[in-house]
Amino acid sequence: MPCDPTTEHAGSVSRPIIRRRRGESTALTARVVEEFPVALVFNDMSHAVMMATPLDLEAFAVGFSLTEGIVERAADVSDLEVFIHADSAEVQLTIAQSAFLQLKGKRRALAGRTGCRVCGIEIFELLDLKPQKIARPNDAPAISHSAIESAACELPARQMLMCETGEIHAAAWCKPDGSIVEVFEDVGRHNALDKLIGGLARLRENMQDGFVFLSSRASYELVCKAARMNIPLLATVSAPTSLAIDVAQRVGMRLLSFCRHEGFAEYTASASPVPV
Amino acid sequence: MPCDPTTEHAGSVSRPIIRRRRGESTALTARVVEEFPVALVFNDMSHAVMMATPLDLEAFAVGFSLTEGIVERAADVSDLEVFIHADSAEVQLTIAQSAFLQLKGKRRALAGRTGCRVCGIEIFELLDLKPQKIARPNDAPAISHSAIESAACELPARQMLMCETGEIHAAAWCKPDGSIVEVFEDVGRHNALDKLIGGLARLRENMQDGFVFLSSRASYELVCKAARMNIPLLATVSAPTSLAIDVAQRVGMRLLSFCRHEGFAEYTASASPVPV
Repeated sequence: MPCDPTTEHAGSVSRPIIRRRRGESTALTARVVEEFPVALVFNDMSHAVMMATPLDLEAFAVGFSLTEGIVERAADVSDLEVFIHADSAEVQLTIAQSAFLQLKGKRRALAGRTGCRVCGIEIFELLDLKPQKIARPNDAPAISHSAIESAACELPARQMLMCETGEIHAAAWCKPDGSIVEVFEDVGRHNALDKLIGGLARLRENMQDGFVFLSSRASYELVCKAARMNIPLLATVSAPTSLAIDVAQRVGMRLLSFCRHEGFAEYTASASPVPV
Repeated sequence: MPCDPTTEHAGSVSRPIIRRRRGESTALTARVVEEFPVALVFNDMSHAVMMATPLDLEAFAVGFSLTEGIVERAADVSDLEVFIHADSAEVQLTIAQSAFLQLKGKRRALAGRTGCRVCGIEIFELLDLKPQKIARPNDAPAISHSAIESAACELPARQMLMCETGEIHAAAWCKPDGSIVEVFEDVGRHNALDKLIGGLARLRENMQDGFVFLSSRASYELVCKAARMNIPLLATVSAPTSLAIDVAQRVGMRLLSFCRHEGFAEYTASASPVPV
């Protein structure tokens, strides 16, 4: 579906602007991406406030819970309610008691760390993210070069808010042939990925059977979040960081960046040629 | 100074890649931006671990202390040491005792919030960021259209790591005529701004006498950080969020986005034409 820049979508608002171009000033109204503080409340305990685009907040809350290791599976979220206020939003989640006790324990441990030196500790431990090698079934479908290039071609037309506002992150779920199944957008790239993962989990989609395509860069945190879900391949439009590459290599995830319709760069295939 | 992509700069590392372009695969070595966990330790108390590019960490630590309101002025940081380890870095700061007691109190208050509902509270209070109207001296120099366009033209050639790695954020300090005085780069846009502000504070630069130009989008947090320093104008290459605009308007900061050599959009001048 091609996007129409004159259509208004949820997640953006109008603001007056003065546009200056080649010496001329024009007063206009532009659509800008909404940024909202979203509180995530687990079993009545407020856990985090995230700056996010108030769209697909159910998927966001479930995805955040999964990629941050708060719950093991989407079914551990037994209830979920979204409250949109004038200046903020709140998602109330009810999670399994065992997951909640673990979350409380983790928060206590973090609070207890005040006063300790955190440096010098092994890096992954330090950040409380211990990515394990991703599980990759032997019959996992190969993802070809053309699948990546095809997803890169298709994504722009699927970014509704991008088309309207000129700037927002997107996370897409693609089949092994590169066709895009789902797209979620957010002002934050981590949020866009969390929304995608939450959306897929709610649909009971098999996250080993396809790949994630992000409109952003690849950072350490994005690779960690995808690794938790055993996603076999992460493709990004922009560059990866050193740590994103190192973690992807460590967990056995393929990391492809600078993905455009005419090609890409693979950062985790140094020892062997890229499988076609 | 034009940048030479074959020169290696601190803040980036080499990684093997396989580049796929128009059906051809080539094994190459590419420079990628370093991403490192950096622990900020105040008076022996570890306060935050940030993912950052390990470059200009003194400026980063001072800037973070200022923009997060931990200290009121750079002189409140009486000592600062940077330790670079294999996989992480640590900055140890010694701050004035009054500032340290305030920081400990704030941390206790935050820890005590566990279990409270944070939503429904007035938004700025919720986020513990209460941007005040920026102080703007009557004799503040006007910043013309051409100053913005000139900074937009000059920035790319000043982004050393961008040129080498293809993707990193930059924060520049510009004089009222648009000439760029200082540029700092980081994998995170908040970090780039913190480095810039710390660098300017160490140079005792008057931050009311010029403007900040960011290679990124304008988010709520970036506007708040700049507002704390009474910076009168924030120009960004990409789009602003709704909250960035609203906060800029509230504190009386000019916010200009989509700043390119041929023009820009001003978001905070709806009531009056842009001064030339």
